[in-house]
Amino acid sequence: MCVTSVDAMIEGVHFRLADGWASPAEVGHRAMAGALSDLAAMGAEAGEAYLVLGLPHDFSEQRALELVRAAAALASSCEATIAGGDVVAAPVLTVAMTAVGWAESSEELVGRDGACEGDLVGVTGRLGGPGAALAVMEARATHGAAAEQALRRARSPMPRLREGRALAAAGVHAMIDLSDGLATDAAHLGRASGVRLHVDLGALPLEQGVREISAELGLAAWELAASGGEDYELCFCAPVAEREHIEQAMDALGGEVSWIGEVRAGPPGVSLSDERGDLVRIEGFEHRW
Amino acid sequence: MCVTSVDAMIEGVHFRLADGWASPAEVGHRAMAGALSDLAAMGAEAGEAYLVLGLPHDFSEQRALELVRAAAALASSCEATIAGGDVVAAPVLTVAMTAVGWAESSEELVGRDGACEGDLVGVTGRLGGPGAALAVMEARATHGAAAEQALRRARSPMPRLREGRALAAAGVHAMIDLSDGLATDAAHLGRASGVRLHVDLGALPLEQGVREISAELGLAAWELAASGGEDYELCFCAPVAEREHIEQAMDALGGEVSWIGEVRAGPPGVSLSDERGDLVRIEGFEHRW
Repeated sequence: MCVTSVDAMIEGVHFRLADGWASPAEVGHRAMAGALSDLAAMGAEAGEAYLVLGLPHDFSEQRALELVRAAAALASSCEATIAGGDVVAAPVLTVAMTAVGWAESSEELVGRDGACEGDLVGVTGRLGGPGAALAVMEARATHGAAAEQALRRARSPMPRLREGRALAAAGVHAMIDLSDGLATDAAHLGRASGVRLHVDLGALPLEQGVREISAELGLAAWELAASGGEDYELCFCAPVAEREHIEQAMDALGGEVSWIGEVRAGPPGVSLSDERGDLVRIEGFEHRW
Repeated sequence: MCVTSVDAMIEGVHFRLADGWASPAEVGHRAMAGALSDLAAMGAEAGEAYLVLGLPHDFSEQRALELVRAAAALASSCEATIAGGDVVAAPVLTVAMTAVGWAESSEELVGRDGACEGDLVGVTGRLGGPGAALAVMEARATHGAAAEQALRRARSPMPRLREGRALAAAGVHAMIDLSDGLATDAAHLGRASGVRLHVDLGALPLEQGVREISAELGLAAWELAASGGEDYELCFCAPVAEREHIEQAMDALGGEVSWIGEVRAGPPGVSLSDERGDLVRIEGFEHRW
């Protein structure tokens, strides 16, 4: 069976081309990463991608090719291919990506609605890099050594396809990719499953440099990691009994897993608590348009 | 197996909202029709559609709902469903539609590359309505009784899904839907198949009112039908032996089929000849961006 995901990125909303904020290649890479990341969160294998490109009249063919080549290169590294698309005129650069993924059967796939009371909440990789990079690009933070890792990570996020399949095979109950920020996406999982995720913000795995940039901005260390968005890591709810199994599976892939909370009864959504155990309210990117 | 089609429509490029040119509902209908029409041309059954909506800040939720409802209504009438999507901010109304279609096996599907020397060229339905409607909307032609049928047809094109499946089952060799105009799309078929389609423009089936509006514009009767675009009828190449079989199949569906030419050897593409047999060159919408 196949699953399909669509994602759009619009110049001036999701990225800026002016002043070197993003190159066409970065836009192509990020659009493909976002679409494939949705497949990763379902535990699907990546198949074909279809690229709709809306080009402003002053966007050169050369730059369009850079964009498409970068998208194709990332697809190829994930064993996916760009199988088609549509090119139209548009007032600003517009990229809509459709990714089709595959699974042998629907039982192999993971939704957002299966989290159960008592599950552990886990997350792959490290968070906050793109949020920290945005602060650097907006010149709210300085471009020190700490920022370099964050910037590099933000410019070429990798969809966690292998991790997603391994987690699905390990029997996780619900999974989502972190595109809007952990606070927002964990709330999606909670609402879809009708349970409450309790997340310990102090346990969030921070990307290198995020702690330093947060300190410079006067933010708590976890803030960029919880609200920054575009991490494209996977957040999932898993039965306690699978904890070791999952750690071994992630280890075998050379990846990381962090346990950041647990699932309880209560109003569907998420509760976030800081290092002192105080409840925290975070406004994520949920309402950014 | 599943097949996927993507299509984008951008305000100011593919439609205008100002001055009543198009309502949000019409935009939703047309975007869905365009995506499903691609599936029809493959002989696939429509399955799920995914809608990416880029909304300008002053586009009300009410109008967005009108758009989505019209798209959903057309999908539903074609036994398809909108299964997901993405909503983002955009400078102008942007609609990218992904449609996923199904077939039992790849043998059931028809591509663009199978046309053979000696095949007949056929087309479903009637052409030129949308082209004539555009002339009326641009006030190049008057809004007489002749125009009404053309306008109605242009505002709610129907994807020829049943016809597409019947033609695929009847063994047509190659098929395409008429989104860019017969002249352009027939050339696509010819090039993809490495053959030359010879089309008799005098044999094109004209939508009601097209002859009158063409006369008013000082155009040959076939001109809007050959170059207007957005007809969403099917053009196909079929073995001569299947001619009667295809006519019966279209008849059984309450549809029309017209035989408009034949496939010969020669430089891949299309040759168009008028009623006197003179070769005609038509610039279609191929280069419109």
